[in-house]
Amino acid sequence: MTPPVINLTRGMPPVDVFPVNDLARCAETALRHDPATLLQYGRSPGYKPLREWLAEQHRVNPDQVLIGNSSLEIFAFITQIHLGPGIRACVESPSYDRGITLMRRSGAQVVGIPLQEDGLDLDALEAEIKQGPPALLYVVADFQNPMGTTTSAEKRRRLAGLAQEHGFWIVEDAPYRALRYKGQEAPTLHSLAPDRVLLLSSFSKILAPGVRLGYVIGPAETIAELARWAVDTYIGPVFPTQGMVYEYCRAGLLAPNIERLKQVYAPRLEATLEALPKHLPGATWTRPEGGFYVGVTLPQGGDMARLLARADGAGLKLTDGRGFYPVPEEGNRFLRVPFCSVTPEEIEEAMVRLARIV
Amino acid sequence: MTPPVINLTRGMPPVDVFPVNDLARCAETALRHDPATLLQYGRSPGYKPLREWLAEQHRVNPDQVLIGNSSLEIFAFITQIHLGPGIRACVESPSYDRGITLMRRSGAQVVGIPLQEDGLDLDALEAEIKQGPPALLYVVADFQNPMGTTTSAEKRRRLAGLAQEHGFWIVEDAPYRALRYKGQEAPTLHSLAPDRVLLLSSFSKILAPGVRLGYVIGPAETIAELARWAVDTYIGPVFPTQGMVYEYCRAGLLAPNIERLKQVYAPRLEATLEALPKHLPGATWTRPEGGFYVGVTLPQGGDMARLLARADGAGLKLTDGRGFYPVPEEGNRFLRVPFCSVTPEEIEEAMVRLARIV
Repeated sequence: MTPPVINLTRGMPPVDVFPVNDLARCAETALRHDPATLLQYGRSPGYKPLREWLAEQHRVNPDQVLIGNSSLEIFAFITQIHLGPGIRACVESPSYDRGITLMRRSGAQVVGIPLQEDGLDLDALEAEIKQGPPALLYVVADFQNPMGTTTSAEKRRRLAGLAQEHGFWIVEDAPYRALRYKGQEAPTLHSLAPDRVLLLSSFSKILAPGVRLGYVIGPAETIAELARWAVDTYIGPVFPTQGMVYEYCRAGLLAPNIERLKQVYAPRLEATLEALPKHLPGATWTRPEGGFYVGVTLPQGGDMARLLARADGAGLKLTDGRGFYPVPEEGNRFLRVPFCSVTPEEIEEAMVRLARIV
Repeated sequence: MTPPVINLTRGMPPVDVFPVNDLARCAETALRHDPATLLQYGRSPGYKPLREWLAEQHRVNPDQVLIGNSSLEIFAFITQIHLGPGIRACVESPSYDRGITLMRRSGAQVVGIPLQEDGLDLDALEAEIKQGPPALLYVVADFQNPMGTTTSAEKRRRLAGLAQEHGFWIVEDAPYRALRYKGQEAPTLHSLAPDRVLLLSSFSKILAPGVRLGYVIGPAETIAELARWAVDTYIGPVFPTQGMVYEYCRAGLLAPNIERLKQVYAPRLEATLEALPKHLPGATWTRPEGGFYVGVTLPQGGDMARLLARADGAGLKLTDGRGFYPVPEEGNRFLRVPFCSVTPEEIEEAMVRLARIV
């Protein structure tokens, strides 16, 4: 009998963590309670009660919040407005593959700045800035995708200072920030340079990705500009799901849900960090304190294309590490391990299979 | 006491026609029934059961259907893929203002072809094609926005033939097609030239706009190309609302809902066509057999900017007719009357107010 395939490709939450009953009830309640808004055209930056709730959470004004159909699409709008052929954008190297795709789609030149355990290599960033500031810098400061690392408080302060000094935008993508399993939180880049940072986040990792409910926090005039772009694109974002999520938040269900998720995910991170030295002593890896990913660098001498094929044969689905690097060859030994979507037992088994083929 | 303002700006359904209870129940049922799909990432062209249901309705294969977060956004994707700076696109003149905005945003040159009572002036279109075929032609063949006119069967055949002969895309936007109050349906352009037509439609006018649920029907390979673009933009469209709408359709509720809407809207069209000769004998207007709009051309000598200001003062909100014309001055005497969103009494009163200021 073939053992079941273990999927370590995307950062998907396991299906069994979704609070199905609560969401089903909240969807019904919301639609009955406010149908005139939720079922009508809404030429707006999102469902007003949810904007207000998010504004309170982030200690900003509601006009600093725009809600959209996924934070990825809001980032697409940002790239459409701020980037274009010949314009330079910087990313951590490695970075979120879908973010890189969108920046490139706009025609921009995407420059990777090496990522270290405590965040970007700021000397390398400063050297890059000497050639003129980039239009924007895309950063996942908390539990980075794909590395799992977190930018230190010290580097956040320097980074915020650089953005202010040289006048470029930082897009701080923070979908994992609430999922801290240990250690201490550092301030958001947004809190350090509110005029220069657009903070993206979403409900995908703390509630359910299928709602595609993302949002951005930023200066009111920049949010208004994004809102005009969004209205021109789709008139208004999908409303009934925003009503459902607002009802869920209003009822005080989100905070306990996040606590529950941490209880599920923390042991999966531990299992990953225990399995790695046992089965892959020749590799190196990050030691995240939260989020969805551990970044693994395999011993030298391997070849990604062959590895993926052999993993496939061994019942292990992996993502090509090269896709996370602006210069793909640099990711030839890199693997992202999305530990949340698999049980501790599956993680152990996955590492056994990986060791066998490395 | 000031009489209440009458709003004749956008084509919004009246709030009281939304089947709130059915939709609330369907949302809950769908989420309980298929949470593993509706709440998870779905890198796909839409919720599979709804794609299949739509495919059956349109007698195509499911791989010819892509569902998105509004048909307008799907059109945005089409413009992003097929248009660009210096590329020519044709529209009916007048046409849907938001469609024109999106084509222009891509950098395309938007050329208006005069619209007649029975559809496009095809001689003018042929003359335009002589300068090289456009990349695409955007048409609302049924109950046009903003004119209310319907393209004749004869002109549909010629139009389909031109697209095939000269190899350009027709985007057939058909959100009003199901709302016919009298007369006979003509075949869709899509049925006449399935390889050259992308048929856009949505649930906004036959169910509720807030769900932002649009779709496109086209050749499988074109749909696959659009799906890749959509996945790169937002991974997947919003799913819970698709589950809700599928549940609504599956339960057989859509057809009776459309019948109910026709009962509400048909008298509003009649009231408009009766009020116009009574109060605006010097104007001319279209005589639609369905949809949302009557197009009114005011007597000569007026001035749109002054008219809008005076209407505002008289408690009547109007949309600037110039926005519907690729060459704005041509719309200086044009008014779109979206009759569905107001009662017959309000229509009568609106025409009284309009007559007073014209």
